[in-house]
Amino acid sequence: MATILDLHSPSVFIGKQGNGVISFGSGQPDLPPPREAVEDIDIRKDLRYGLIQGEPALREKLSKEYPNSTADNFVITNGASEALDLVFRSISPGKVLVPRPYYYSYPPIIKLAGMEPVYTDLVGGRIDIDDFKKKVKGCKAVLINSPSNPTGCVEAIETLKEIEKVTADLGVYVISDEVYKDLIYERENYYIKGEHVITVNSFSKTYAMCGVRVGYLWSSDQRVADDVIKIKTHTSMNTNLVGQDMALRAMSVPRSYIRDQQEIWRRRRDFIYKGFRELGFELWRPEGAFYILPRCANAREFVSLLYNEYKVIVYLGEWFGAPDHIRLSYALDMSEIEEGLSRIKDAMKKVRCF
Amino acid sequence: MATILDLHSPSVFIGKQGNGVISFGSGQPDLPPPREAVEDIDIRKDLRYGLIQGEPALREKLSKEYPNSTADNFVITNGASEALDLVFRSISPGKVLVPRPYYYSYPPIIKLAGMEPVYTDLVGGRIDIDDFKKKVKGCKAVLINSPSNPTGCVEAIETLKEIEKVTADLGVYVISDEVYKDLIYERENYYIKGEHVITVNSFSKTYAMCGVRVGYLWSSDQRVADDVIKIKTHTSMNTNLVGQDMALRAMSVPRSYIRDQQEIWRRRRDFIYKGFRELGFELWRPEGAFYILPRCANAREFVSLLYNEYKVIVYLGEWFGAPDHIRLSYALDMSEIEEGLSRIKDAMKKVRCF
Repeated sequence: MATILDLHSPSVFIGKQGNGVISFGSGQPDLPPPREAVEDIDIRKDLRYGLIQGEPALREKLSKEYPNSTADNFVITNGASEALDLVFRSISPGKVLVPRPYYYSYPPIIKLAGMEPVYTDLVGGRIDIDDFKKKVKGCKAVLINSPSNPTGCVEAIETLKEIEKVTADLGVYVISDEVYKDLIYERENYYIKGEHVITVNSFSKTYAMCGVRVGYLWSSDQRVADDVIKIKTHTSMNTNLVGQDMALRAMSVPRSYIRDQQEIWRRRRDFIYKGFRELGFELWRPEGAFYILPRCANAREFVSLLYNEYKVIVYLGEWFGAPDHIRLSYALDMSEIEEGLSRIKDAMKKVRCF
Repeated sequence: MATILDLHSPSVFIGKQGNGVISFGSGQPDLPPPREAVEDIDIRKDLRYGLIQGEPALREKLSKEYPNSTADNFVITNGASEALDLVFRSISPGKVLVPRPYYYSYPPIIKLAGMEPVYTDLVGGRIDIDDFKKKVKGCKAVLINSPSNPTGCVEAIETLKEIEKVTADLGVYVISDEVYKDLIYERENYYIKGEHVITVNSFSKTYAMCGVRVGYLWSSDQRVADDVIKIKTHTSMNTNLVGQDMALRAMSVPRSYIRDQQEIWRRRRDFIYKGFRELGFELWRPEGAFYILPRCANAREFVSLLYNEYKVIVYLGEWFGAPDHIRLSYALDMSEIEEGLSRIKDAMKKVRCF
């Protein structure tokens, strides 16, 4: 009998790719970055420290994308991860309301900053605004992630507007992690607005450059940037300059690049969603990002079996606050998705999934 | 009368260079990075996430430089700053013993990690081992920085060995910030050794690539790397891949590059040390790094005057835990050092320095 894996965290699957393994684990685009970001880049010869806040040209360019923003409102960070870490450290201590299921790094980031996560459970993949309103009282901040990893769901604009209002009234920060903002299939992204809003974003998903680690935060409240810079001065200093140069170059790609990517993601979404429905799984239809979160009884056994006997990596929903679910990324070639679905179908004969 | 500057921190001088200003402030080499690190670099086209721990090739190469180390013992970080931040977060809470004067980021980094700095005052620029032994009791860690910013002093090997022994006996971590290890004029670097030792280092100073933000930590205790990786997985993920590629390339420069740099620093050291002595200042003769810390009465007034009327930036010793001192970096061209000294000589007529 195959060994049951010690499924403590996604790190159990690190380095397990290749060799015929099909991985639905990874939360990053498999597509290449745009040519503009990687070709004919002259590495600058002056590699002295840059501004802690980030390169002026990059912040200037970003300010054109965000309504009513100025370059001063942005801080360039080592990916969205560092932006979140810095924001929480700058507003600590206090409670942070987090919709559940959540991106698996959220609870540890919040706790590492000396804050306490509290949860509001999604209903049908969406924020339950009544529960949200109840739980938000007494919180210092809420963390919104729309489109969401791991649900693939996009919150309704009315919900986001109601969150803006409730939090503004209570003086609660909204930290809006919008790293999938350019990966929405149904509508344009809606930027959550307000003086108490801190938007966290990244070049990683839009331009397929996760490993370059360039993200940013912005807020119309200048104190947010100022407070974050004070911490970053000591904890990491400027974000790497070559990465910032690449990010600026990536931003010059025509909008059609992003639309073309969306088309690819949409086709994959349709394919995997249909495939899982046909296998009998209950799941939400993703409207953004590139994840599905099917309900699955015996998830732990099934995840172990899939890896051990079928060379298929899927993540345990539990890591995302979703027990009895499995979480799959469809950042894979169509042929791999197809092969993966076929192996999953076979595996279902051995473990009862529903 | 000129305004007294609000000298709250070194950030008061950010963006004040150029326009005839001579800055003795900046803690980074003014020399260019080696050609190998910046020329003919093919940016990799696969920019997906790398290992949180860092690129295997870079860690492998580093392990050749450190006696009895393996690639597994290293974690590549966003400069030495992030290495320190991660280490303190991983061992928090507790007290950290810090020799004073100290690098100005040490107290905030320690406090941000939820730890408490306690101090042992240097005597004649050196650790007073008796005071050290008294203060180290009850500490979780000590932070050693030899060669030191801001003193330019290098600890005697006997002192470092005694620190190894005392801390090993007490089970106290030694965090050894050796970012100036290749900038010692008097002897080879002595790596502090032991299972409880965590060495923090960087490519920034050796290869003049501060803005690329690639540093690392290593410890022969594998748990250190493991604990740090767990945190970094959530707070910043892998260190930027292009920077790691550049760091690896930089490591291929011949050892003569480093010796040639040392020669330049030594000449500057001799020049500025002699200059300050001739002006009547009392100061330690730097044995490494590129800083002097002359005693100076009315330091606050003198720093203000120098900037306002003589366009000379020097830092306040107070920021480094050294009141009644000023701190200067000699990462400047000889002609600039000469011009700076001449302006300082003039300014001394207006403010009593001793």
